[in-house]
Amino acid sequence: MDNTGLAPAREAAIRTSFKRQGMMRTMEARIDRIAPGRVVLSMPVTSAIDQQHGFAHAGATFALGDSAAGYAALSLMEPGTEVLTVEMKVNLIAPAAGTRLIAEGEVVKPGRRLFVVRATVRSEAADGTLRDVALLQGTMIPA
Amino acid sequence: MDNTGLAPAREAAIRTSFKRQGMMRTMEARIDRIAPGRVVLSMPVTSAIDQQHGFAHAGATFALGDSAAGYAALSLMEPGTEVLTVEMKVNLIAPAAGTRLIAEGEVVKPGRRLFVVRATVRSEAADGTLRDVALLQGTMIPA
Amino acid sequence: MDNTGLAPAREAAIRTSFKRQGMMRTMEARIDRIAPGRVVLSMPVTSAIDQQHGFAHAGATFALGDSAAGYAALSLMEPGTEVLTVEMKVNLIAPAAGTRLIAEGEVVKPGRRLFVVRATVRSEAADGTLRDVALLQGTMIPA
Amino acid sequence: MDNTGLAPAREAAIRTSFKRQGMMRTMEARIDRIAPGRVVLSMPVTSAIDQQHGFAHAGATFALGDSAAGYAALSLMEPGTEVLTVEMKVNLIAPAAGTRLIAEGEVVKPGRRLFVVRATVRSEAADGTLRDVALLQGTMIPA
Repeated sequence: MDNTGLAPAREAAIRTSFKRQGMMRTMEARIDRIAPGRVVLSMPVTSAIDQQHGFAHAGATFALGDSAAGYAALSLMEPGTEVLTVEMKVNLIAPAAGTRLIAEGEVVKPGRRLFVVRATVRSEAADGTLRDVALLQGTMIPA
Repeated sequence: MDNTGLAPAREAAIRTSFKRQGMMRTMEARIDRIAPGRVVLSMPVTSAIDQQHGFAHAGATFALGDSAAGYAALSLMEPGTEVLTVEMKVNLIAPAAGTRLIAEGEVVKPGRRLFVVRATVRSEAADGTLRDVALLQGTMIPA
Repeated sequence: MDNTGLAPAREAAIRTSFKRQGMMRTMEARIDRIAPGRVVLSMPVTSAIDQQHGFAHAGATFALGDSAAGYAALSLMEPGTEVLTVEMKVNLIAPAAGTRLIAEGEVVKPGRRLFVVRATVRSEAADGTLRDVALLQGTMIPA
Repeated sequence: MDNTGLAPAREAAIRTSFKRQGMMRTMEARIDRIAPGRVVLSMPVTSAIDQQHGFAHAGATFALGDSAAGYAALSLMEPGTEVLTVEMKVNLIAPAAGTRLIAEGEVVKPGRRLFVVRATVRSEAADGTLRDVALLQGTMIPA
């Protein structure tokens, strides 16, 4: 894992927050990468989070992307702060099929009051093929 | 339950689709009301879907609102079709505290090709007090 | 005009800001109503703001709705503040035909740091018929 | 101008449509580049399109970005079709100051029924410095 340049305290803040999220545990999500302004999360596509066709539910796809974006913002926030989603928009561009979903969140514009973020969610097929399934763009706030 | 005016076949299509969504089962969501262009879903706020402060995760709030909006659209679609989310935007306006979340989805503009939808998600406190926690606006497509 | 309940200073702040917006002047927009948390603007549909089919351009429709929503927020902000759009989403639900566009902006959730707003833009036909053409939902910030 | 790979008929369709948009003419917008799935538009920041601080109005910024994204989509659509904005979301990340605005629109996901698009709007200062001022993400439909 490449955590280059990230203060250990910021990484610890992200890992502590992540562990306290029941939603991430329920979806079996894990942290794949933490870097300044960039966080990657992933989770398996299982029947626990699917919709009527066996693909990941739009809500699960959103939850993973939103969390990756939120933690990307938290990686750049002041110590002692938490992060909240102000608003988030998702365009679903392909069925969330495959065996895993991988969400890469990034800070597009850090600010004193607000952080603009984006996330791309990709599905990984059994043979390792990646496909973009959702694009998110939104706003995070320190709390 | 007031299902006034809804063809039994449309209601059956919604219930069948809902039962096949693992995500709804995992979140312990249920259908509270089905009417033409309007569907209400609810679920308990539990540690299975919370974030680091014990409130419902933005992803869970989104999932419930998105599903209510999607089924509201499906209630007006042609027999034999399914519904997919094209895009959805959520503004989170208060912490999703309380004991239950209630999402009311409605069709704002039905169309031949696309349906514009909105949903309001409310939290219900132990004493029955309701509070708006999220507003969603988006687009559904028959599939 | 019904400006019930709005402090004269807030109304004056909105009118002063509005007059200083070249974009509103260019689009021949005017203020139709100012009330606490609710502002109505309108403008003619002319060839100066149209698109290739003679309807109002999505950008003009957006500009009117965004401004109505922004001034609705400004009506509830502290004296001495200005308002900025953080983000805004629009769903275009019908062609912006007709002779006039009327945008009604409202504050859905006022806050200390952020204001959540919505706007509905309607087109008015020569015979006075109104039709919803766009729905906006977004976030304003005091500046 | 690099129009590599674009069928002359598609380029002509874009130029014809652009010329028929009064809104583009009013804003003094011009086409800087057309390529398959990518279109760049620009316009001067003048008092005709400004807001109360002399920056470009959010509506003007949106209009330029939305149009760049729409023509990017049109560049990939079938002959004889027009393009309409289904929905568009903008995050405004810096004041639209400077002397010019430059909007680069791109198709993220072409589809049979819908096109997912993004646009970045940058401001250009008198010394040529560029700064991102707005990020758009939305959906276009052939009409």
